[in-house]
Amino acid sequence: MTRILVIHGPNLNLLGTREPQIYGTTTLAEIDAALSAQAAAAGVELESVQSNGEGEIIGHIQKARGRCQGILMNAGAYSHSSYAIRDALDAVGLPAVEVHLTNVHRREEFRHKLVTAGATVGQVLGFGPASYTLGLDALLGNLGIKPWRRG
Amino acid sequence: MTRILVIHGPNLNLLGTREPQIYGTTTLAEIDAALSAQAAAAGVELESVQSNGEGEIIGHIQKARGRCQGILMNAGAYSHSSYAIRDALDAVGLPAVEVHLTNVHRREEFRHKLVTAGATVGQVLGFGPASYTLGLDALLGNLGIKPWRRG
Amino acid sequence: MTRILVIHGPNLNLLGTREPQIYGTTTLAEIDAALSAQAAAAGVELESVQSNGEGEIIGHIQKARGRCQGILMNAGAYSHSSYAIRDALDAVGLPAVEVHLTNVHRREEFRHKLVTAGATVGQVLGFGPASYTLGLDALLGNLGIKPWRRG
Amino acid sequence: MTRILVIHGPNLNLLGTREPQIYGTTTLAEIDAALSAQAAAAGVELESVQSNGEGEIIGHIQKARGRCQGILMNAGAYSHSSYAIRDALDAVGLPAVEVHLTNVHRREEFRHKLVTAGATVGQVLGFGPASYTLGLDALLGNLGIKPWRRG
Amino acid sequence: MTRILVIHGPNLNLLGTREPQIYGTTTLAEIDAALSAQAAAAGVELESVQSNGEGEIIGHIQKARGRCQGILMNAGAYSHSSYAIRDALDAVGLPAVEVHLTNVHRREEFRHKLVTAGATVGQVLGFGPASYTLGLDALLGNLGIKPWRRG
Amino acid sequence: MTRILVIHGPNLNLLGTREPQIYGTTTLAEIDAALSAQAAAAGVELESVQSNGEGEIIGHIQKARGRCQGILMNAGAYSHSSYAIRDALDAVGLPAVEVHLTNVHRREEFRHKLVTAGATVGQVLGFGPASYTLGLDALLGNLGIKPWRRG
Amino acid sequence: MTRILVIHGPNLNLLGTREPQIYGTTTLAEIDAALSAQAAAAGVELESVQSNGEGEIIGHIQKARGRCQGILMNAGAYSHSSYAIRDALDAVGLPAVEVHLTNVHRREEFRHKLVTAGATVGQVLGFGPASYTLGLDALLGNLGIKPWRRG
Amino acid sequence: MTRILVIHGPNLNLLGTREPQIYGTTTLAEIDAALSAQAAAAGVELESVQSNGEGEIIGHIQKARGRCQGILMNAGAYSHSSYAIRDALDAVGLPAVEVHLTNVHRREEFRHKLVTAGATVGQVLGFGPASYTLGLDALLGNLGIKPWRRG
Amino acid sequence: MTRILVIHGPNLNLLGTREPQIYGTTTLAEIDAALSAQAAAAGVELESVQSNGEGEIIGHIQKARGRCQGILMNAGAYSHSSYAIRDALDAVGLPAVEVHLTNVHRREEFRHKLVTAGATVGQVLGFGPASYTLGLDALLGNLGIKPWRRG
Amino acid sequence: MTRILVIHGPNLNLLGTREPQIYGTTTLAEIDAALSAQAAAAGVELESVQSNGEGEIIGHIQKARGRCQGILMNAGAYSHSSYAIRDALDAVGLPAVEVHLTNVHRREEFRHKLVTAGATVGQVLGFGPASYTLGLDALLGNLGIKPWRRG
Amino acid sequence: MTRILVIHGPNLNLLGTREPQIYGTTTLAEIDAALSAQAAAAGVELESVQSNGEGEIIGHIQKARGRCQGILMNAGAYSHSSYAIRDALDAVGLPAVEVHLTNVHRREEFRHKLVTAGATVGQVLGFGPASYTLGLDALLGNLGIKPWRRG
Amino acid sequence: MTRILVIHGPNLNLLGTREPQIYGTTTLAEIDAALSAQAAAAGVELESVQSNGEGEIIGHIQKARGRCQGILMNAGAYSHSSYAIRDALDAVGLPAVEVHLTNVHRREEFRHKLVTAGATVGQVLGFGPASYTLGLDALLGNLGIKPWRRG
Repeated sequence: MTRILVIHGPNLNLLGTREPQIYGTTTLAEIDAALSAQAAAAGVELESVQSNGEGEIIGHIQKARGRCQGILMNAGAYSHSSYAIRDALDAVGLPAVEVHLTNVHRREEFRHKLVTAGATVGQVLGFGPASYTLGLDALLGNLGIKPWRRG
Repeated sequence: MTRILVIHGPNLNLLGTREPQIYGTTTLAEIDAALSAQAAAAGVELESVQSNGEGEIIGHIQKARGRCQGILMNAGAYSHSSYAIRDALDAVGLPAVEVHLTNVHRREEFRHKLVTAGATVGQVLGFGPASYTLGLDALLGNLGIKPWRRG
Repeated sequence: MTRILVIHGPNLNLLGTREPQIYGTTTLAEIDAALSAQAAAAGVELESVQSNGEGEIIGHIQKARGRCQGILMNAGAYSHSSYAIRDALDAVGLPAVEVHLTNVHRREEFRHKLVTAGATVGQVLGFGPASYTLGLDALLGNLGIKPWRRG
Repeated sequence: MTRILVIHGPNLNLLGTREPQIYGTTTLAEIDAALSAQAAAAGVELESVQSNGEGEIIGHIQKARGRCQGILMNAGAYSHSSYAIRDALDAVGLPAVEVHLTNVHRREEFRHKLVTAGATVGQVLGFGPASYTLGLDALLGNLGIKPWRRG
Repeated sequence: MTRILVIHGPNLNLLGTREPQIYGTTTLAEIDAALSAQAAAAGVELESVQSNGEGEIIGHIQKARGRCQGILMNAGAYSHSSYAIRDALDAVGLPAVEVHLTNVHRREEFRHKLVTAGATVGQVLGFGPASYTLGLDALLGNLGIKPWRRG
Repeated sequence: MTRILVIHGPNLNLLGTREPQIYGTTTLAEIDAALSAQAAAAGVELESVQSNGEGEIIGHIQKARGRCQGILMNAGAYSHSSYAIRDALDAVGLPAVEVHLTNVHRREEFRHKLVTAGATVGQVLGFGPASYTLGLDALLGNLGIKPWRRG
Repeated sequence: MTRILVIHGPNLNLLGTREPQIYGTTTLAEIDAALSAQAAAAGVELESVQSNGEGEIIGHIQKARGRCQGILMNAGAYSHSSYAIRDALDAVGLPAVEVHLTNVHRREEFRHKLVTAGATVGQVLGFGPASYTLGLDALLGNLGIKPWRRG
Repeated sequence: MTRILVIHGPNLNLLGTREPQIYGTTTLAEIDAALSAQAAAAGVELESVQSNGEGEIIGHIQKARGRCQGILMNAGAYSHSSYAIRDALDAVGLPAVEVHLTNVHRREEFRHKLVTAGATVGQVLGFGPASYTLGLDALLGNLGIKPWRRG
Repeated sequence: MTRILVIHGPNLNLLGTREPQIYGTTTLAEIDAALSAQAAAAGVELESVQSNGEGEIIGHIQKARGRCQGILMNAGAYSHSSYAIRDALDAVGLPAVEVHLTNVHRREEFRHKLVTAGATVGQVLGFGPASYTLGLDALLGNLGIKPWRRG
Repeated sequence: MTRILVIHGPNLNLLGTREPQIYGTTTLAEIDAALSAQAAAAGVELESVQSNGEGEIIGHIQKARGRCQGILMNAGAYSHSSYAIRDALDAVGLPAVEVHLTNVHRREEFRHKLVTAGATVGQVLGFGPASYTLGLDALLGNLGIKPWRRG
Repeated sequence: MTRILVIHGPNLNLLGTREPQIYGTTTLAEIDAALSAQAAAAGVELESVQSNGEGEIIGHIQKARGRCQGILMNAGAYSHSSYAIRDALDAVGLPAVEVHLTNVHRREEFRHKLVTAGATVGQVLGFGPASYTLGLDALLGNLGIKPWRRG
Repeated sequence: MTRILVIHGPNLNLLGTREPQIYGTTTLAEIDAALSAQAAAAGVELESVQSNGEGEIIGHIQKARGRCQGILMNAGAYSHSSYAIRDALDAVGLPAVEVHLTNVHRREEFRHKLVTAGATVGQVLGFGPASYTLGLDALLGNLGIKPWRRG
């Protein structure tokens, strides 16, 4: 059975109460629940982890090798600086989709630089929690599970 | 009835034969057909235009005001430089979703800068034709037509 | 009889309804009417064009040669990037005055760079519609039609 | 009665003999005379000061608060570097118009950066002494004393 | 009772023996003892943690929410690069004061950039261990516990 | 029969009267006539277009596919900024030669950056109208019509 | 008896009415009064000067040599650019503490660069008027008058 | 007895299977075995750790103080950004040698910047696993255990 | 009789065997032979030198004064950095044409900067050995020996 | 009789006691005495001023017009930033020689930029007090008073 | 028999007396002697050249082709700027190892950029004369003469 | 007897005929004659060399060690780029004075950067041939042969 790893990076555990005017009121548990339902409907198993540590995220990516077929990742602020996470994605060679809740191109300059994106298949940014569900759709499509033509 | 404008920018009319190792073999007509079917299924009308001209794209954006409720746009190379298209999006105030067939963050440096993205709701990049269908999903979600939770 | 060409660049046709908190509520027609009256009072004929296209604006500048004696131009977002419009102004050699409705130095960084300004006589920026009428005054003065001393 | 402060920055006292091929042959006294006549015609009182010192210019700006209703300023070379003058304008909160005799965008690179402009209503540049009279018009318009429509 | 979290970042556990010509000979335990006494005198409880890990520091900041009323932080070298720590401070919304033992503006270029400072109330830098006690004073003042006027 | 498309970009229609001290007095018609004669002598058919619009130039490049075997292009000021024209050249995959009348490396800084050149076979710059005829020679050589050894 | 010079730079004389949403409502006189009381309690004499001029501030720093034992300085906008003030501090060799009312790292980019800080002992920024009193504490500590341990 | 700490940074635990076309097929265990044999032959004890976490690597460096006499480190991607690891090396003051499997100057631009190198004795880069054994030789030489002259 | 100096810069003596996938298989002797034949046909004498040294190339340029009427130069990698060679060309004042075998704008970033080009009449780049023969044509045209119109 | 103005900029009044390890122990009075004697020997009158203020220095430059024939200036730290002083030198059009006691190219990066130098005849830097006397020699030579050949 | 060329760049002939506090007291002759012994022990022949000229170094590299199997090079200051030497290494295609006596990452900023390194197998930096012997070991390993495992 | 080496860099052998509008009409022989007379008058021997090669200039500097007591150098265009010449000056440790005929700060941007100056005692720039004689004076002063006080 196909298994997908969902990685939530630093501060995403605070979703729902963290600057709701920017990040909205949906909690991480609600996002994970929605993703799990979506995965189940596609016959796919889902694992979700959250970590504030760069090294731990690298560890999660590494452990996915052999156990998972794809990665859905929101690396938070590490997305803009971490070459080590990028190397980890390249090292395990699994298809990864990067998502962001907010439209980073409308925010501070430092968030316009996307470092980890270069080691992913693609990115979905700016749609709040829907960035995750759209990102999962994208990953399922990349894995050949969900066709790109809808109807 | 909700109507959505799809804008294809410069050189996208060549899809299918244009550097297929980069852009794939799907044609613009096939993408438009898939989007139309997807829109119809959601009870939404779709209009599609392609243009190589910056000024013409601005014109299409302007004419959407009052006629359409949202914009799905792949502005091609103009995405990386056109402040005039960005101003047009801000001027009409319609929700717009930006899509790219390729993962621009894996390509030449100049494609990492996303100028028009700052005037959109969000972006979907790197999934080939699926960037369009995911982008339409995102736009439908933003318009309240399709919920972010799948199942 | 002296004839002056007024060029309005991209998105200026939307004036009045375009982000009124930034650009105000005066329409382009109202600006043109005021400019025409002002020109008539000085015994000068006025032509006004609006275009969203960089190439079209270049065409308007070129056609002014031999027909007009001066140019009043608000090139919108192209002001910050278009070396081709700048070349056109240099090529026809007509005195040109650049105007902007808003104070670009108070806005986004990219608007601080004025590319076309180097091929004009001078600029008037930040006074809303009055930037146009002041700019016309400046141009009339440059043409020797209206002296600069008031009283 | 409305009172306006005119500030001339460093080296402007030399006008008339200072590099006339760049700055022309009109003297500062002639400019002040023209401005005074123009102000009188509009029922406005004018005060004019010239200073080579950054601190003194700040002092003049500060003293205008409560005594004047607007500022017309040519800060010379300080326009391109002085955050302290910019702070002073922000601090007193009076509407200010920045003028330059020459078209700074046609000259050395360092003159393209306009630091104080961000704290003004707008700028008029490149029209020689007419930059001042147009700038005064702009300021009078901003103060509601002289409407912008001509005819 | 008011509780304040003191966070010491990477390598600060080595204080006293770490490059004493730069960082002095006072140990972290001595600093914590002084801070505790100072807090007790103000009727405030103090907790102190030291961590070399960026993710762990984020965790400490997150756990302070609901338990503490303010944060006193020396994030060490992470101060110059960590957008994730900055996000954490913004996420929990507690008033934070940043301190540095050394005058970073006298040292290497990379230490002049203060990334986390933007999410704090203010900073105290360069006074050795006194940066901490002054920073605690500043934080107490910000919390309304200790007024800023002395006498 | 081999057919070559000659593209003249913005403002080149003014050749002969446009800043003759920079661009010389030869007209575009004279250049086209010389190129046609040169092509005829080599048994090659020539088509020539001039356009001020970036989008139109892209259109001309696209329409050359299937109809022409090579492109000789002077994209004027767009040479220094247009990634869309560069993409068009890559998209049609025809051998292209870029020419410039003037030695851009002796002129303003912004003309030193050659954006479209990366998608061409090579460039000929600085020889006035001879840049065109030399460029055509180069293109004929690239197409195997004219050997690189002269005699 | 120990004497300390307090230097207030450009525009600080307007405190209380200057952009109170940024700088607060406390006046400079109130700050000086608080500092005097604080100094008196420590058995230290205080002198306070305010100047808008860079040269005058340099003069005040120079005259402190031999008369004062330390300097407390808020050089306002000159803090971000004045190498001459920095040289003056280095020249007199007195311990100086730099203070800022606002958290400059949360404001415009140009305020993030601290030029004069490199010639001071340390800085206190962001605590409003308390930046001054904390800064005086820091300076007294540096002079050995007030030890850094509280309790 | 002399003891040396070998630190392997992020993703190096995947050696052998990680992008073998870049990093080769030798595993970390094989490298450690070779280093141990080499150390034993020189009468030196070796400890080896691998960690994906920046903070953990700092911890390993700190714990080496008093226990080890030198450090052999491949900090992976952290080598290009971590000022905290650099500070740790400076803090413990042990001689360190930095090694890289690949020639970073032939790879992506971001790998050309070597941040931690400034706190080491020297570096050995580009020789695959031999970078480690050469680096150990270099460290032994630095410790006076192995002379620089071979024979 | 007109005499032209051909200068081949560093590493060009290796042509034919030097990275043939980049530089082709034609040798320098073959290029010189072709150029000599081409020159002879135009009644012009040719001298050819090759040098790896910047100073030697400067010497060759200097010695051409009085002996030659023009210079055809491929300065190899020095083209991207040598202000001394550029000065030499300006000093002797002979018309020079710069050629490159490869299209430098398709290669590494450092090859995009053309330093010596500013002191030449023009450049021909990217056509392999034909860059030389086209360059010689260009030079002959510049000297009035070969008209720009072919036919 | 020829009269020369000597201008000493900020902090130079402290010479002799100001960081003697950098600036030496000679006082400004001693330098002026030496210059006066040197001038007298050449039959030239000398005036010397020192000022810490940018505006005052500009004033001194302006007043030299008509009274003096040349300027010898050490503008101290203003040399690296003041476009207003540079404008003043250009405005009065007197030959000026810039001197510096220290070799600024061996010191901090910001001292490598020489802004005012562009408006002078030449510069003499790095020879301590001898920079002044050599600079005076240079100025006398420029004025035709003292020929440059020695013997 | 395998032959290796050792290239010493500018100023390395002064080793032993050149800034010994930076470069040590070992002479170039001593280094060459040690390298020769080391090579002989491995059954390899060694040639050593020193040159201050960039062109001469290129010549030495070129002449190594066909005569030598590898290059050990310390290009001194040219390492930071010479694209021509880099091209030479690429042109001859021999494996090269770059060495530096000092740890360039601890020295001036301009020494952090390693231009020639991109055309080498790897680098050894910072170990004084041992950089050479380690570099020779590395080269022997690369040539398959000395295995990477020691023991 | 004291001996001084005069080094003239690339293209200086052409003085007199090289762009006389920039460099004047004095020849290098005339400069050397004047310098020799000046040296003789001071009881000092002079040697003069000219070279276009960077490596040769380094050689001349090296050979001065032990034979000369000081160096007077105009390194021409190498002054703006050669770290190898700078290293040579540091290596021999002789006092050097750098001279330039022209005021480089009034010319092209690339001439504003003075690389070799950091390894000299000081510089004299902009006085034509007098830069040399003043530079020799400066060097003689530095050597204690000619005191700096005139009169």
